[in-house]
Amino acid sequence: MTKINSNLLKISRKYIFPVIEEKIKNLKYREKDADIINMGIGDVSLPLAPTVAKAIKDSVSEMEVTPYGYGPAEGYPFLRDKIVEMEYKSYKITADEIFISEGINLALCQMEELFSLDQKVAITDPTYPVYFDSNIMSGRTSITLLPCVEEHNFFPCVPKNEHFDIIYLCSPNNPTGVAMTRAQLQKWVDYALDHNAIIFFDAAYEAFITSEDVPKSIYEIENAEKVAVEFRSFSKSAGFTGLRLGYTIVPKSIMLTFEDQKISLNSYWKIRQNTKNNGISYPIQKGGLASLYGDGLKETTAQTQHYLTQAKKLKQALIDSGFTCYGGIDSPYIWWKIPPSTTSWEFFDYLLNTLKIVSIPGSGFGKSGEGFVRLSAFVLHTLNEKAISRIQGIPCNMK
Amino acid sequence: MTKINSNLLKISRKYIFPVIEEKIKNLKYREKDADIINMGIGDVSLPLAPTVAKAIKDSVSEMEVTPYGYGPAEGYPFLRDKIVEMEYKSYKITADEIFISEGINLALCQMEELFSLDQKVAITDPTYPVYFDSNIMSGRTSITLLPCVEEHNFFPCVPKNEHFDIIYLCSPNNPTGVAMTRAQLQKWVDYALDHNAIIFFDAAYEAFITSEDVPKSIYEIENAEKVAVEFRSFSKSAGFTGLRLGYTIVPKSIMLTFEDQKISLNSYWKIRQNTKNNGISYPIQKGGLASLYGDGLKETTAQTQHYLTQAKKLKQALIDSGFTCYGGIDSPYIWWKIPPSTTSWEFFDYLLNTLKIVSIPGSGFGKSGEGFVRLSAFVLHTLNEKAISRIQGIPCNMK
Repeated sequence: MTKINSNLLKISRKYIFPVIEEKIKNLKYREKDADIINMGIGDVSLPLAPTVAKAIKDSVSEMEVTPYGYGPAEGYPFLRDKIVEMEYKSYKITADEIFISEGINLALCQMEELFSLDQKVAITDPTYPVYFDSNIMSGRTSITLLPCVEEHNFFPCVPKNEHFDIIYLCSPNNPTGVAMTRAQLQKWVDYALDHNAIIFFDAAYEAFITSEDVPKSIYEIENAEKVAVEFRSFSKSAGFTGLRLGYTIVPKSIMLTFEDQKISLNSYWKIRQNTKNNGISYPIQKGGLASLYGDGLKETTAQTQHYLTQAKKLKQALIDSGFTCYGGIDSPYIWWKIPPSTTSWEFFDYLLNTLKIVSIPGSGFGKSGEGFVRLSAFVLHTLNEKAISRIQGIPCNMK
Repeated sequence: MTKINSNLLKISRKYIFPVIEEKIKNLKYREKDADIINMGIGDVSLPLAPTVAKAIKDSVSEMEVTPYGYGPAEGYPFLRDKIVEMEYKSYKITADEIFISEGINLALCQMEELFSLDQKVAITDPTYPVYFDSNIMSGRTSITLLPCVEEHNFFPCVPKNEHFDIIYLCSPNNPTGVAMTRAQLQKWVDYALDHNAIIFFDAAYEAFITSEDVPKSIYEIENAEKVAVEFRSFSKSAGFTGLRLGYTIVPKSIMLTFEDQKISLNSYWKIRQNTKNNGISYPIQKGGLASLYGDGLKETTAQTQHYLTQAKKLKQALIDSGFTCYGGIDSPYIWWKIPPSTTSWEFFDYLLNTLKIVSIPGSGFGKSGEGFVRLSAFVLHTLNEKAISRIQGIPCNMK
């Protein structure tokens, strides 16, 4: 009988979303009319911006006249050029370093496969689960978790004597909602330069940054283009979770080795994309383009502002109720410190069954996530107000 | 410095499309007004079917009112259910065995990664290059090429004593254009049942089948659901090359082993999809749905018929000019036997520089492709007529 890739069997972490779905289902079974507010999954709740929608529809109309077949594996020049113009013109990034993708999740998994399996990987904890799982599925064995704890403002401390080859950083962070300052990110870039390491920088939430001292791109840090790959998405910045579009910045100055050779990561990523990829949907790329300037940018910015407003209100309500919480300034996520007497799953159950609010237990993001739950402010105003009034009713024994 | 996955360096085959592009560029440089007819790449030339376009636009309008965020990693039930109803209702395939994908290329690469690296792989030669390249990039070392030669009607002979774990079959075949009959496919299913092997069945061109004795799905063969994964695409059946949509059939009865355990491939594919995939674009899935029934099906069927008509005319013209060629009956590809005095690259150069017709040299698809070039009939009627009249002028010394 055919043999499975046994690395797949090493994924021991139970995928949390099906467990959460099951608990919601059970609640609905017990209380048919339960008025549940879902602040769990980080998914958009506002409809698609009209200018983006129009651009997609117009491009489909165009396809009814002129066939648009296979596009370039790297993405269309119209989109790569516009990204440089709108997002990277102050940095040393050019259009041939930008690769359009179906989203960060896929691109991260594909990028990791380009590196030797003996490379030492560091992943922040708590974390977006796919960083860890994709490395396990590839058979990588040296994975170190870097705790991001309250005492250090959730910043992963830069090791003094330990060597890593690949470091995953996410800022503004999912799940903590805390963003790295320029000074903090500088420390990791310096580490990578010293150690000839590579940073995988997940910037999925850059559109939510409001703090002056938080960089929107890792390339704001000098020499970062020698050591960092940046992953961006239209999912949260422009409401594309259901459309699928992102991009990856692979600077030409990042070099890898093989025996005595030096090899450009950019050229190997290009080979990979041309072999294992047939391009990204043309109308979706046109939609992405529309979100980057003019009315499309105004509309999508209004959406991210809306979510940030909800986050701010939610955070204030938690603080006013006597809770400690983080995030919500440069991110739509609130990292809510729970009473020390409960686990994050117990507090999740309390929020679900008593307040009818869906959160995500911090331990679902890793060991260092225990003691917290994540709330997502990707909600409509009215639902957020309703959630706030329920939170205000939490009795003292649950604080 | 960070180390590359050295398997990437083992791809020795020069990717042919950039070479072809370069040769076209050189011709245009020498002859600015060269009237080039591209019959190389298998890409659609007719515009998008109006009913499909309308469905995509309507779904985008829907998203302007109701947010459609992350969809199911396996694809939306509306599409999976319709695929069962329209394509698989006579076979033992259910909706939970159907997984929507961005296309066959990606799905094939992802599927191969689920199997142990020591598995013995058999790939037909000539072949679609990604079968081979993705295995090399994963680090698989036991890859056997099965020659598909004229003397055996391009059928890969079933080995008597050799064991393979994974067999790649493509029917109707790219590049030869020849389809397997029911009796031929039965032989490979029997082999897989005997050897506890798995068949990766690439059915990208099933919409072009016209012969009675050629199965449209491998599941027409008894017990194939125990040994075969089928890959399908909307690219060629509905003109989706620029939209990106396909699906993979992973029957629940296919079992893998690990030590003493038996493991269902379907359940591990599901875990993989839920980990490394965030679903497929909602409007594109709605477009795919529209192509499966009613007016959408009528319109897309008219398109495949158009391409088959061009293929038939092209083939007849080649035969009338004294050439031998294959395919073009159940496929839009013509496998053109070239004069024994030339190589396929030389004949490619002749066609390009003298007739201004772009083909693909057979050797680009593997060693057994030498002696042939592939012509694609994904062309408009007028261009096909023009190509035919140029072919009719080929002098005797090039036959």
